[in-house]
Amino acid sequence: MSGSTLGLLFTVTSFGESHGPAIGCIVDGCPPGLAITEADIQLELDRRKPGTSRHVTQRKEPDTVEILSGTFEGLTTGHPIALLIRNTDQRSQDYGKIVETFRPGHADYTYWHKYGIRDHRGGGRSSARETAVRVAAGAIAKKWLRQHFGIVIRGYMSQLGEIAIPFKGWQHISENAFFAPNDEIVPQLENYMDQIRAERDSIGARIDVVAENVPVGWGEPVYDRLDADIAHAMMSINAVKGVEIGDGFGVVAQRGSVHGDELTPKGFASNHAGGVLGGISTGQDIRVSMAIKPTSSIPQERASIDKQGEPVMMQTTGRHDPCVGIRATPIAEAMLALVLMDHALRHRAQNADVHVSTPRIPGHIG
Amino acid sequence: MSGSTLGLLFTVTSFGESHGPAIGCIVDGCPPGLAITEADIQLELDRRKPGTSRHVTQRKEPDTVEILSGTFEGLTTGHPIALLIRNTDQRSQDYGKIVETFRPGHADYTYWHKYGIRDHRGGGRSSARETAVRVAAGAIAKKWLRQHFGIVIRGYMSQLGEIAIPFKGWQHISENAFFAPNDEIVPQLENYMDQIRAERDSIGARIDVVAENVPVGWGEPVYDRLDADIAHAMMSINAVKGVEIGDGFGVVAQRGSVHGDELTPKGFASNHAGGVLGGISTGQDIRVSMAIKPTSSIPQERASIDKQGEPVMMQTTGRHDPCVGIRATPIAEAMLALVLMDHALRHRAQNADVHVSTPRIPGHIG
Amino acid sequence: MSGSTLGLLFTVTSFGESHGPAIGCIVDGCPPGLAITEADIQLELDRRKPGTSRHVTQRKEPDTVEILSGTFEGLTTGHPIALLIRNTDQRSQDYGKIVETFRPGHADYTYWHKYGIRDHRGGGRSSARETAVRVAAGAIAKKWLRQHFGIVIRGYMSQLGEIAIPFKGWQHISENAFFAPNDEIVPQLENYMDQIRAERDSIGARIDVVAENVPVGWGEPVYDRLDADIAHAMMSINAVKGVEIGDGFGVVAQRGSVHGDELTPKGFASNHAGGVLGGISTGQDIRVSMAIKPTSSIPQERASIDKQGEPVMMQTTGRHDPCVGIRATPIAEAMLALVLMDHALRHRAQNADVHVSTPRIPGHIG
Amino acid sequence: MSGSTLGLLFTVTSFGESHGPAIGCIVDGCPPGLAITEADIQLELDRRKPGTSRHVTQRKEPDTVEILSGTFEGLTTGHPIALLIRNTDQRSQDYGKIVETFRPGHADYTYWHKYGIRDHRGGGRSSARETAVRVAAGAIAKKWLRQHFGIVIRGYMSQLGEIAIPFKGWQHISENAFFAPNDEIVPQLENYMDQIRAERDSIGARIDVVAENVPVGWGEPVYDRLDADIAHAMMSINAVKGVEIGDGFGVVAQRGSVHGDELTPKGFASNHAGGVLGGISTGQDIRVSMAIKPTSSIPQERASIDKQGEPVMMQTTGRHDPCVGIRATPIAEAMLALVLMDHALRHRAQNADVHVSTPRIPGHIG
Repeated sequence: MSGSTLGLLFTVTSFGESHGPAIGCIVDGCPPGLAITEADIQLELDRRKPGTSRHVTQRKEPDTVEILSGTFEGLTTGHPIALLIRNTDQRSQDYGKIVETFRPGHADYTYWHKYGIRDHRGGGRSSARETAVRVAAGAIAKKWLRQHFGIVIRGYMSQLGEIAIPFKGWQHISENAFFAPNDEIVPQLENYMDQIRAERDSIGARIDVVAENVPVGWGEPVYDRLDADIAHAMMSINAVKGVEIGDGFGVVAQRGSVHGDELTPKGFASNHAGGVLGGISTGQDIRVSMAIKPTSSIPQERASIDKQGEPVMMQTTGRHDPCVGIRATPIAEAMLALVLMDHALRHRAQNADVHVSTPRIPGHIG
Repeated sequence: MSGSTLGLLFTVTSFGESHGPAIGCIVDGCPPGLAITEADIQLELDRRKPGTSRHVTQRKEPDTVEILSGTFEGLTTGHPIALLIRNTDQRSQDYGKIVETFRPGHADYTYWHKYGIRDHRGGGRSSARETAVRVAAGAIAKKWLRQHFGIVIRGYMSQLGEIAIPFKGWQHISENAFFAPNDEIVPQLENYMDQIRAERDSIGARIDVVAENVPVGWGEPVYDRLDADIAHAMMSINAVKGVEIGDGFGVVAQRGSVHGDELTPKGFASNHAGGVLGGISTGQDIRVSMAIKPTSSIPQERASIDKQGEPVMMQTTGRHDPCVGIRATPIAEAMLALVLMDHALRHRAQNADVHVSTPRIPGHIG
Repeated sequence: MSGSTLGLLFTVTSFGESHGPAIGCIVDGCPPGLAITEADIQLELDRRKPGTSRHVTQRKEPDTVEILSGTFEGLTTGHPIALLIRNTDQRSQDYGKIVETFRPGHADYTYWHKYGIRDHRGGGRSSARETAVRVAAGAIAKKWLRQHFGIVIRGYMSQLGEIAIPFKGWQHISENAFFAPNDEIVPQLENYMDQIRAERDSIGARIDVVAENVPVGWGEPVYDRLDADIAHAMMSINAVKGVEIGDGFGVVAQRGSVHGDELTPKGFASNHAGGVLGGISTGQDIRVSMAIKPTSSIPQERASIDKQGEPVMMQTTGRHDPCVGIRATPIAEAMLALVLMDHALRHRAQNADVHVSTPRIPGHIG
Repeated sequence: MSGSTLGLLFTVTSFGESHGPAIGCIVDGCPPGLAITEADIQLELDRRKPGTSRHVTQRKEPDTVEILSGTFEGLTTGHPIALLIRNTDQRSQDYGKIVETFRPGHADYTYWHKYGIRDHRGGGRSSARETAVRVAAGAIAKKWLRQHFGIVIRGYMSQLGEIAIPFKGWQHISENAFFAPNDEIVPQLENYMDQIRAERDSIGARIDVVAENVPVGWGEPVYDRLDADIAHAMMSINAVKGVEIGDGFGVVAQRGSVHGDELTPKGFASNHAGGVLGGISTGQDIRVSMAIKPTSSIPQERASIDKQGEPVMMQTTGRHDPCVGIRATPIAEAMLALVLMDHALRHRAQNADVHVSTPRIPGHIG
């Protein structure tokens, strides 16, 4: 598996460049009999789509998905599901000037030295455009997990730059451009972004994702722990620089008497663990948090070098998100869905026969 | 690969329980011709060994490694290297009482429901004893990386509970029980740990690891990015709840004009990225940080349930580290070495022919 | 990897059904810098294309390939290469009658019980139409192997039913519809096929493939031996029931004094081994032979059962090859190319540093 | 996975050289709750053991297996099972003379050029001694398959050199040194072997293996077909040069009207397919046949070259089987068991939810 395949049993193999003819993927290992249509996938793609507010890139991509295989009369057949998204709004002339230089914070320098060839148009393969593919594949996983286990996977922005966003309610998320779970803070976020743009700068963000109703037992110690695979999936998203499960870095200054979640017949008394113990899901909510770096493409002069190693000053133009974190929530949800689905299948491969008379307690008291 | 194998080309397949006859692993994919002896491996194992100070578990394990295969006249042959560490100090009577209950913060509940059977002795497979295997395997990777690329991988404790540990110098690390890079702070750390123990509690820690001299170009986008595989490896270590690359969660409130590391002919002007761009090493130091949760086994009464689902109060006895982070540094180094080695091989598989006339700049100015 | 991915480092992930919108694949792991165009791939596809003589299916598929990603200005970039072939001549009404019954010799019964759902149109996923994808992917591998090592991979039909086909010369193969290396025998083959069709029956065939100029050293013991991976790849082709390396089943009655190929400074004195010893290429020609079963779809009444388990008599109609072996040669070549390419990369991953002063002898004396 | 791991979900990772301290493996992915002891494994190992008759190598290896992990109170725990077999009868002086030369028919030349280093003692890693590990791992798979599905896997020698061995009954196999299913022919086989030895030569053999009671549905098209994985596993056994499923090479001259097995409500009317259609098990017996080459080590002078490329005449001494096929039957059974077990788990991972009302017919009429 040469880098573009995710998962062991439920696999996503991705292809495509920002300004090539198309992006897409092959989803292999989906159990047969799942009702899935292009509309199911489109719904998720539209949540991530560029051009939906003034705070994100103005590239206009309809991101229309076509299912090329793996379904029959609306149901999955157990065979590979190929998803195709044609690129339509490739203004590659915008990127012409970056051919000979390496943009700071981008993959230009590393791709060039690794491959000796680089599709510079819009970042080519390193573009976050590839994440549309993840969202499309994740839509299939999401639907299967929901139908088979009632699993609900939802994410939100919990911090934008210096502004922490208090969680007020899930219903707010779909009603603003930030995926903020809090309607009252939205004007502040908008002003903040306007100011960032006015300063010709960009800013980071923190995204949280929660999976509810995951059964106890998923995860394959000692290396393919559920949390390890989640960390892998999240860190594979463009711009992610940190991943936390449960209390995350909060555990550094935490006491064991606080951290260890007590068990009661009515459920776990707390969820510092974030739903994973020993690398296996506990039945509590899976809680994941990630740090998204500020967009590297900013309309300011920055120092760099060219292909001859000579110093240059350069300024990125083109259509860029001033905060890539704003569109990251659906991607993070998709990645969590993909990991959970893979582990659902891995779990039942080995443990389908296991029967334990011990009652399973709810994820939380109440 | 069912959970106990790490890596794609340089693989570690691990086995063993805390109180079984032995632990060990098979390291497959090591290039031939590397001089490696049991002494090389023992050196690293001794750094992680229990019983070395009053701040760690008093279990006495010599952790003597035996090489069973894969070397001939002191050199690797290209064939699987089997490493065997016999368990010698298994006082399983200490653990008898936990058979019927699930310790809070431990994998007892999840293992029981997943497998329907549980080797409760010392945590069985979920014990951190397995990490000795990682250290042993990592010693091979470390040596190869050092010989072939001059790569140096070193870690340290950067925070113990509330106490941040300022980096003073690498030379201090081997001179105290904490892997603290600062001799002056050691008395404070010792007092702190004495107090934690006196309170019958445990505490978390933060560990940082740095790899120097990693060449530009390692990492396989879009899923097997170098940072994604590092996150996977680190999060697979017992008790790790968070992983950061470079500035990590610091990027959330960072501006793009600060974060994007500028390039100059003399090297990168900064290293906010932590040595990875677009999932590929930049030639800068790889900087990784991780959060270790407080030990779950503490000598306090805690609420839980038993196998019948009835509420119980329980208190963990036995020999436990009050801060598992104290012995985590060699493990984190080993994991980073294993990931880098796997990617070194993956890189040359695909890109051995690539020649670029563009000069490679140093990882930092100087 | 859920069944539709071949290879470890140079991977092909395949999708598509006989009568769905398209078939295709993602080729991942191709080294950067290889000149590859749609024309290169089309050339190989055209060799396998249906409808080229009266002895094969009359389905008219242009099998036009589109490269969707992974190349830039005509060169591979090191990123996944997606290949798309639209289906155009799907007369699915021809297949309507087989929905409720299981055709003898086909995958109908097994697919139905495995998946509980079946795209019956033209065999759906089990159709040999999928092999077009293999040929397309193999074209890339073939070109890389030829450019980097001068490897030439060629196959031919060595037996059609009872008729053994003596090898006369490579130049004949492209000049007849059978890939027969012997122009004189072609009229006999044509008469034979006409007779088979007149009898409303089908017939098996034997295909041989040879790879020349493979360097010594490829193959990964003890399980991923070169010959083991070749056997896997060949047996994964529809209708293949047997695979031989070198003398194959001829070794059963062979003496060791005959079989073991002697070495001389001028080369190997013989090639009973078929170019593989201990699972590793020797530098001799890789010689592979395979048995292709007769087409299962024949216009005769045959006994079967329906979905209710009731006995039925059925007769397959539609457009079928009376000998699927006739078009199998390009597929077999492609599979050998894919395996060799994967092993070329695996070999250099682990052994790029190996230098041996011992001279490498030619594959054969002369 | 670097060559020494077999399987995807039920994996065997093998280690060890002929004359090193030990051989062994890690079996990962075994479902929990299987009763398995060293005695279960020893039983199978003893069937393959050297020194049991005058027709096999006189090396005296007790081949005593130790379970190092993965079981608790006699039951598998779902964690890796490490198996250790110490080497005891290593007379490495016997092999001293082959250090500087390459034995014809052996892996000496290929190992030397691939790795640049070679443990020449007894063939090192390329020795058939490694197959003991396969038999040990296979014992676990065999037991699980028998308990869960009633699957019986049995092999036998069907041909020794020129002597075809008519199948008379399973009960004969354990009663002679050849695994011949026919007591009457045993004296002839013994005379034949005495003659081969008298001629200082060696001879090939054909081994057949049958798996009964395999359910319909196992196998993962299009690449990881059950038959493809069987071909891979069998061809990975030392000395195997050909593999057949069902009628194998017999299909070349077979008509479709003969080959396609008809279905009736009482079962399949025949089994030309060998129990696999479309890469998926049919419920018929899985029938596999393989060709084993004659032992390459024979006490005759043969031409070769030395490390300097100079011509030499050499004669292999040491303790060798004059027909390696004689001890191959338990190995072939083990490999078939390992493949079936892996596919049993893969099947239920994806298809555990599939329910089909269509009756499953027996593998054969009667």
